[in-house]
Amino acid sequence: MRSPKEMRDLFRKNERVMTTSDLCPHYLQTNLISLPYEYAFDFLLFCKRNPKACPLIEVLEPGQVEPTTAFGADIRTDVPKYRVYKNGQFSKEVLNLYDDWCDSFVTFLIGCSFTFEKALVEQGIQLLHQEQQRVIPMYRTTIPCQSVGMFTGNMVVSMRPLKPSEVDQAIDITSKFETSHGSPVHIGDPNEIGIEDINHPDYGESVDFEEDRVPVFWACGVTPQNVLEKAGIPIFVSHAPGHMFITDSVEEYR
Amino acid sequence: MRSPKEMRDLFRKNERVMTTSDLCPHYLQTNLISLPYEYAFDFLLFCKRNPKACPLIEVLEPGQVEPTTAFGADIRTDVPKYRVYKNGQFSKEVLNLYDDWCDSFVTFLIGCSFTFEKALVEQGIQLLHQEQQRVIPMYRTTIPCQSVGMFTGNMVVSMRPLKPSEVDQAIDITSKFETSHGSPVHIGDPNEIGIEDINHPDYGESVDFEEDRVPVFWACGVTPQNVLEKAGIPIFVSHAPGHMFITDSVEEYR
Repeated sequence: MRSPKEMRDLFRKNERVMTTSDLCPHYLQTNLISLPYEYAFDFLLFCKRNPKACPLIEVLEPGQVEPTTAFGADIRTDVPKYRVYKNGQFSKEVLNLYDDWCDSFVTFLIGCSFTFEKALVEQGIQLLHQEQQRVIPMYRTTIPCQSVGMFTGNMVVSMRPLKPSEVDQAIDITSKFETSHGSPVHIGDPNEIGIEDINHPDYGESVDFEEDRVPVFWACGVTPQNVLEKAGIPIFVSHAPGHMFITDSVEEYR
Repeated sequence: MRSPKEMRDLFRKNERVMTTSDLCPHYLQTNLISLPYEYAFDFLLFCKRNPKACPLIEVLEPGQVEPTTAFGADIRTDVPKYRVYKNGQFSKEVLNLYDDWCDSFVTFLIGCSFTFEKALVEQGIQLLHQEQQRVIPMYRTTIPCQSVGMFTGNMVVSMRPLKPSEVDQAIDITSKFETSHGSPVHIGDPNEIGIEDINHPDYGESVDFEEDRVPVFWACGVTPQNVLEKAGIPIFVSHAPGHMFITDSVEEYR
């Protein structure tokens, strides 16, 4: 089992490009958003007002690239894959941010539900996206976020199909991981939160599951990508969905 | 017993100018900071990094004056007394902010230890500053805050002298009020946190107490005044220490 630093080094050298879902169990994984300073106040306040979708782990001041949660790391290189958005449109996926980095960028590390997956597996809960080696499926919903200025929109969720007998236990476990999205935001019928086809996720990959399983939905740190894209700001960068930043912090829950 | 709205109306009309320490028990009271938008990101991040001194209740976007925690209120008039700071210096105390308000001001409502005082009193703990009708004594300390850019400095604390037998109970009670500074930051010898003379507070008024009482110190929302003053920004406004904004929110603890 490789350490977070070893994995970050592999990502830095582009020797691996993969979802981080079952890597480095017990370590905190994060979503990444870097955007120009002029939007940083509004976005920081957006995170404060939407703690379920955007639980803040750390904020790096303008131009800073080394988080306190990962000594020696560089957030421009140590994520397996990035997305660049320009003028409200997805522009490209890249393996590092050297060409698209601006010194005015403020970076936000936002908690990720991958952090609590090991705790679920340890209780015998089978995670199909891991077994099927898929990037976890994520969906845009009709659940509204609290707005700040031009930052407005709906929540993105990740989905894990569970056995009915596992649902209560999964709620109990994940509710303790407050900085990693905590308890589910929806259980059951996807239509109720505006998801038309569970087999066509908006991000990640579809997971095969039998009808006796219940889809369980957690708030997802891809929500800001959805909201920032809609706001049409000139540029921002993020991790590619499912390809997270792995910190040296051991998961914390309360 | 007057409601928060009734008290705010009295303050708005300048019919009362007083410390809010024992007013509207069970309602959340807050510190107030309003500052120009250009400093708002750094200050919001300062609050996030220093949650003990600066637990955020609410942030109002530029120019907004009505909090969601107090319907119909106006933060420019509904605090009993304000302070205006210019170029890093205390400038004046005023009863409303009409002359000093800027449309670019972003307002931060920060939790206050007055919120948990009723819970202490209900458990039979005598609060001497209330009995002696003094503004609670507050002190600059040597406890460092986490810095953000130019915002750097030490924590300000409030002090309540308790009987030794009450200290454990006071810790238990106040630790539940996380958004109102929570548990004490220091108990006992004031010198250990850089307070030279307990009888000469930096803010508020001295409280008389016998030697058998223990001074107990809580993080205080006057900390930002200390930090912003030191940073020397052109202008910011705050409540006058001890003269808080009273919201309509019933105290919440976890």
